[in-house]
Amino acid sequence: MDKPLFLRTLAGQASPTPPLWMMRQAGRYLPEYREVRAKAGGFLDLCYNPALATEVTLQPIRRFGFDAAILFSDILVIPHALGQKVWFAEGEGPKLEPITGEADLVRIDEALSLERLAPVFEALERIRAALPAETALIGFCGAPWTVASYMIAGKGTPDQAPARLTAYRDPAFLDRLIDLLVESSIAYLCRQVEAGAQVLQIFESFASALPPGLIERLSFAPLRCIVAGVKARHPHVPVILFARGAGPRLEALAATSGAEGIGLDWSVDPAWAAATLDRKAILQGNLDPLALIAGGKALEDGVAAIRAAMGDRPYIFNLGHGIQPQTPVAHVERLVALVRS
Amino acid sequence: MDKPLFLRTLAGQASPTPPLWMMRQAGRYLPEYREVRAKAGGFLDLCYNPALATEVTLQPIRRFGFDAAILFSDILVIPHALGQKVWFAEGEGPKLEPITGEADLVRIDEALSLERLAPVFEALERIRAALPAETALIGFCGAPWTVASYMIAGKGTPDQAPARLTAYRDPAFLDRLIDLLVESSIAYLCRQVEAGAQVLQIFESFASALPPGLIERLSFAPLRCIVAGVKARHPHVPVILFARGAGPRLEALAATSGAEGIGLDWSVDPAWAAATLDRKAILQGNLDPLALIAGGKALEDGVAAIRAAMGDRPYIFNLGHGIQPQTPVAHVERLVALVRS
Repeated sequence: MDKPLFLRTLAGQASPTPPLWMMRQAGRYLPEYREVRAKAGGFLDLCYNPALATEVTLQPIRRFGFDAAILFSDILVIPHALGQKVWFAEGEGPKLEPITGEADLVRIDEALSLERLAPVFEALERIRAALPAETALIGFCGAPWTVASYMIAGKGTPDQAPARLTAYRDPAFLDRLIDLLVESSIAYLCRQVEAGAQVLQIFESFASALPPGLIERLSFAPLRCIVAGVKARHPHVPVILFARGAGPRLEALAATSGAEGIGLDWSVDPAWAAATLDRKAILQGNLDPLALIAGGKALEDGVAAIRAAMGDRPYIFNLGHGIQPQTPVAHVERLVALVRS
Repeated sequence: MDKPLFLRTLAGQASPTPPLWMMRQAGRYLPEYREVRAKAGGFLDLCYNPALATEVTLQPIRRFGFDAAILFSDILVIPHALGQKVWFAEGEGPKLEPITGEADLVRIDEALSLERLAPVFEALERIRAALPAETALIGFCGAPWTVASYMIAGKGTPDQAPARLTAYRDPAFLDRLIDLLVESSIAYLCRQVEAGAQVLQIFESFASALPPGLIERLSFAPLRCIVAGVKARHPHVPVILFARGAGPRLEALAATSGAEGIGLDWSVDPAWAAATLDRKAILQGNLDPLALIAGGKALEDGVAAIRAAMGDRPYIFNLGHGIQPQTPVAHVERLVALVRS
């Protein structure tokens, strides 16, 4: 039997139409998601409920037939499983009890307990069993810098100022935290593969604010370590790196990361990326999620521009960031038709 | 008599040490600023009080002998002078009564009234009269896209989603608003020159979230129009464009804008910029403001990296964004010594 289109593309095969999925495709824009979410309790309760996490992961596949499903979870399950207090206040985003220096490290474990994440792996097994063979299953985690910036600030912050200041003031502590997250991410991603994930995506949501003197040490080197660590155990599982806001630094990342896929955020010119980034990198992206909300000409022009830019380069169609809750479902249907036409 | 170092550099002359100023150099990190601010009333009251605006503009020059003073004001004086309701809630950032479509345009004027901005021009005259001859005086305004994003959302917003969605949904309205801001900015900047400004900086604070299909239309083309409009009346006044988050698109901006200076935010690799951007562009930047807060090795390494990257290219030393309130004054003194050593 043929490999799924998504995996063939990540192996470098071109195809008449690209595979398609959307970041945050299991989400609030879907009425069936909102229904499950309402009965799940808190957000983390949903992440840790294998039956419900499976259900919401499958919903967009049933509706749109995307080429890949992505595990419904959150990048903050790693700090949570390390023992940091993490909670999601309704309408406020995540909150954590901040870990601001070496002294606070006593409040978390020295290594990740995979047992605490057992419901995630159970969800992956259920999802893989339920998915059509042609649909790839993506596992994921957050990049160490992005996760560390939440762990240090205790919340999302503009330009990750608390963590960035820590990088200047207390580099030894930050390096230690990043190392812990690298090790944890490798263990977590490998276990995801063993539970059924066929592709892994690492979300570096906060590359934009890292200055040139820090991005290699805090983002690219840890990402490279995770890719190498995962590939040491699972050499054939492709990895996609989504480094939002990396801009021209994507060139260095694509050339050196060891990952098969490079995600493009919506601010990246796909023509620049196609012309500049390592030919071996499979690009993924990058429609502005707001063009999908707007629909009509904005949507059509956006899809056409990405298609034209990619030319004969194999690529994965995606948004340049997560789909927004106010996106009309009809616009997603139109996107699917446009990409597959 | 010699031209000030700042103007000579913008004219393309190299010098043994670069001219130096800091974005938001008149600000809360200075005790003497906080004293004036406390007695001024609201933030806009300070902007519109020529004596106090002059005083705070001069404070950092007296303390540090920077090569340029920048008018103390705010980019939102243009919407305010157009008749939009603008206020600064303590600790919350600016608020405006949103203008979300054509129908709301009746609430503002069809052209900028320079009379309402008379206190700004009076401040410039006083500042120029009080400044040493070797210190250049910078006037400024916000770029149309950045200002429009505040006018539409009524506040600062992550990724300027309301204005970006407007760009897709109601391009005719947004183009009309941008055109009004282009005309207003030209008139405002020209009047600033006539009141004593010797250099003009345009702040495009929000270039990062603009996708490739919008950045030319909403940011670069309007910036080019303003530069051309100002130069039609004042051909010898240099202009600096600070397009924060423009990343690799700076190359196109530098090659086509008609401006003498290109500001670099802290995320831009100065070595990339020096190697890539049009040789005629005078680069300005770009120390991470948090490296200045941290001081010590982070500050020294940051200064050394910029100096090494610029090589023999004439450049202006600055931060990559505004100085933060918690910056120790002693670190600014150290920065000045490092840059001038």
